This record gives sequence, C-alpha cells and structure tokens, in this order.
Amino acid sequence: MNLQDTLSWRYAVKKYSDLRVEDDKIRRILEATNLSASSVGLQPYRVLVVENKELRKQLGEGSFNTQIAEASHLLVFAAYANIDQAMIDDYMARTAAIRSTPLDQLTDFKSKLESFLLARPADENFSWAARQTYIALGTALIAAAAEKVDTTPMEGFDAAQVDRILGLTEKGLRSVVLLAVGYRDEAGDWLASLPKVRLDVEEFAPVVG
Amino acid sequence: MNLQDTLSWRYAVKKYSDLRVEDDKIRRILEATNLSASSVGLQPYRVLVVENKELRKQLGEGSFNTQIAEASHLLVFAAYANIDQAMIDDYMARTAAIRSTPLDQLTDFKSKLESFLLARPADENFSWAARQTYIALGTALIAAAAEKVDTTPMEGFDAAQVDRILGLTEKGLRSVVLLAVGYRDEAGDWLASLPKVRLDVEEFAPVVG
Repeated sequence: MNLQDTLSWRYAVKKYSDLRVEDDKIRRILEATNLSASSVGLQPYRVLVVENKELRKQLGEGSFNTQIAEASHLLVFAAYANIDQAMIDDYMARTAAIRSTPLDQLTDFKSKLESFLLARPADENFSWAARQTYIALGTALIAAAAEKVDTTPMEGFDAAQVDRILGLTEKGLRSVVLLAVGYRDEAGDWLASLPKVRLDVEEFAPVVG
Repeated sequence: MNLQDTLSWRYAVKKYSDLRVEDDKIRRILEATNLSASSVGLQPYRVLVVENKELRKQLGEGSFNTQIAEASHLLVFAAYANIDQAMIDDYMARTAAIRSTPLDQLTDFKSKLESFLLARPADENFSWAARQTYIALGTALIAAAAEKVDTTPMEGFDAAQVDRILGLTEKGLRSVVLLAVGYRDEAGDWLASLPKVRLDVEEFAPVVG
C-alpha cells in the first residue's frame, strides 16, 4: 500500500452501489481502528457496527445523508459521556494482563489517571473523548481505503435518535460521528471524478521556526 | 506498507535519539496530513512546523512532555477559533480553481456552508474544528510510521503559551494538540519494548445490528 495513493483515492462517497463489503475486510478495518492512538491509551470510545438495512434507515431518519442506509455497513463512533473509576480499573487490569505486570506496579499511573480524569467535569471529559474518537475515524478512513473500501464520514445526523435506538445512553456512550462503508457507484456519484480540493501544503503546514 | 504492521510499530515515544528527521520525510508526512478528510472539506486547522530547539524549549516550558524539545521536530496542530466569511470565500475560490468550475456554480454549496457555519457560536465552531484536527492527527501518526518516523501526540502543554509565542491568536488559531516527530531511543525508552494495550476487537467494535 502506498499511503499517498490511498489517501488520494479516498473521497466522501455520495452514492453507493449495492455491493456488500466482505466480512474479512470489515474485520481488518476494525482491527486497524482499534490500534489507533488515544490520550493516555484509554480508548474512551466504541465503534458500533450496523449492517441491518432497516435499522440503518431508522438511524438515518431525517438526515440528508442517504448513505447511512444505502451503503453496505454503518460504523457508529460513540464517545463516553464521562470517565468513571470502573473504566480506569478495567484499563489497569488490561494493562497488567497484556504486559504481565503486577497491578501494584501500576499504582502511580493509575493515580495520575484518576486525578486527571475523575476530577474533571463530565462535559470536558466528553469533549476530550470525542476528540480521541476522531483519531480513530482518521485511522478507519485509511484502513478502509487500504482495502479499496469506500467510506463517508457524516456529522449530519440526529445523535439523540441514534443514541436512543442503539441504547447508547444506558451504556454511557454518545454518538459523535458516523462512517458509511461500502463500494462507490462510480457512474452514479457526481463527486467520484472530481479532483480533491486541498490547500497548498506550504499554506496548510507553514514552517515557523 | 502493511497498515497493521505500521500501526503496531507505532507507539507514543517517551525518549528520542538525537537523529534529525530528513526534510523529504517531513514533507511527505505533511503532504499526507493535508489529504485528510474534514467536514465539508473546509480544513479548518493548520499544522505549524517547528524545528528550532530553543523555540521548542520555550513552547514546552512547564510541560511534563520533554519530547517537545528533545525530538527532531514539533508539529503544532491548531484549529481556527471561529469560522468567518473570508475562510468560506477562500475555500470557494480554491474549489473553483482546482475543479475548473465557475464560482457561480458553487452558489448553493456556499450558501449551505454560510448558513451552517456563520450562524453558529464561535465555541461550537472551534469544538467542531478541533475534532477535524484530530482526523489529521490520526493521518499524521500513520504517515510518520509509514516512513519509520516516530511520534508522540501530546495534549499536556500550555496552549495559551504556545499561542502567544507562535502568534497564533492574531491568525485566528488555537493550538489543540502537539506532535513530536523524531527517532526513538530504543535502549533508553522504557515503553519501546512493551506490548500495546488494546481492547479485544469484539469489545471495541461490537456488531449491534
């Protein structure tokens, strides 16, 4: 895979074909996304996978993003509304298990996380978690394109409706961004043939020192 | 490049060697980052490139992230504090030029952007712009790893200090996340040899429909 080519190939698909994305490709996209960086490594978000078309129609009701129902799959990126002790405890247990480290050697790290996250208002933790979620979105876009699978990231949806239908609120999650996954309808998509609009790299990323 | 291997190779480096990252590699990382997706394609952020060590010391003063000064380069990801008419006009002019489309064929798109962005409070636009910035951060992490260049994303810094020193406020920008770029000191970095801690993919990305 050449990253530059992969990134140039990707665009936000407006019209999908009826082709289904194969399970092994979906799996590899999710595995890659799970390897995304997140602040202090906490992964304060989840990705809900929805293939059922009827369910996707409900999730997209009222949205101008017809891709929600028309693509092959929908990935719902949802961030935790707050961070609690149980999340930190789970993370420490996972760290101890994966790194074969006794839990009591993680005491300092755990205390740091607790003083950083548990004292902070919920809205700050959510805002922070939502930002981490977008790193994962960035990974997912590349991972899909590496498989020649198309995507559309979408913010134009009714988050309260999605949270209610998928029972996210009870799980402490809030949907923040959707990703339609499928195969482009090259002939039917007006955007498919248009060049990408980007800043000159010197304007985008100036050297300042 | 195998994406899974690239993502597994990456970690948040704690200790850098003195090696400098080559200009062509920095350039390719920035070019890839510039190809990141952003909502409505607006790219409401910039990446400031800082190599000067003295300047990086000033930027990192008071931060526990010694990587700010010790790495080879620092990328400052900064989002626009608000979205104004001039940004939308620039974007339309760029779109017209790159796609050889007359500006008056972009009227509908322009009106949509204006009613979406100009009526919204500045803090909502900033929060939205900051999230887009993290997609670009996700791209930069992968683009660097694809070049076997190491990185450390960092939120623990004094944003007001960075904004002041780099004159970002006058440019309408606010720093949101830093990325140290360099080569790991494999022997000196306690984290270099430890396995990555991640959720099981089934827990991270459950199939819900």
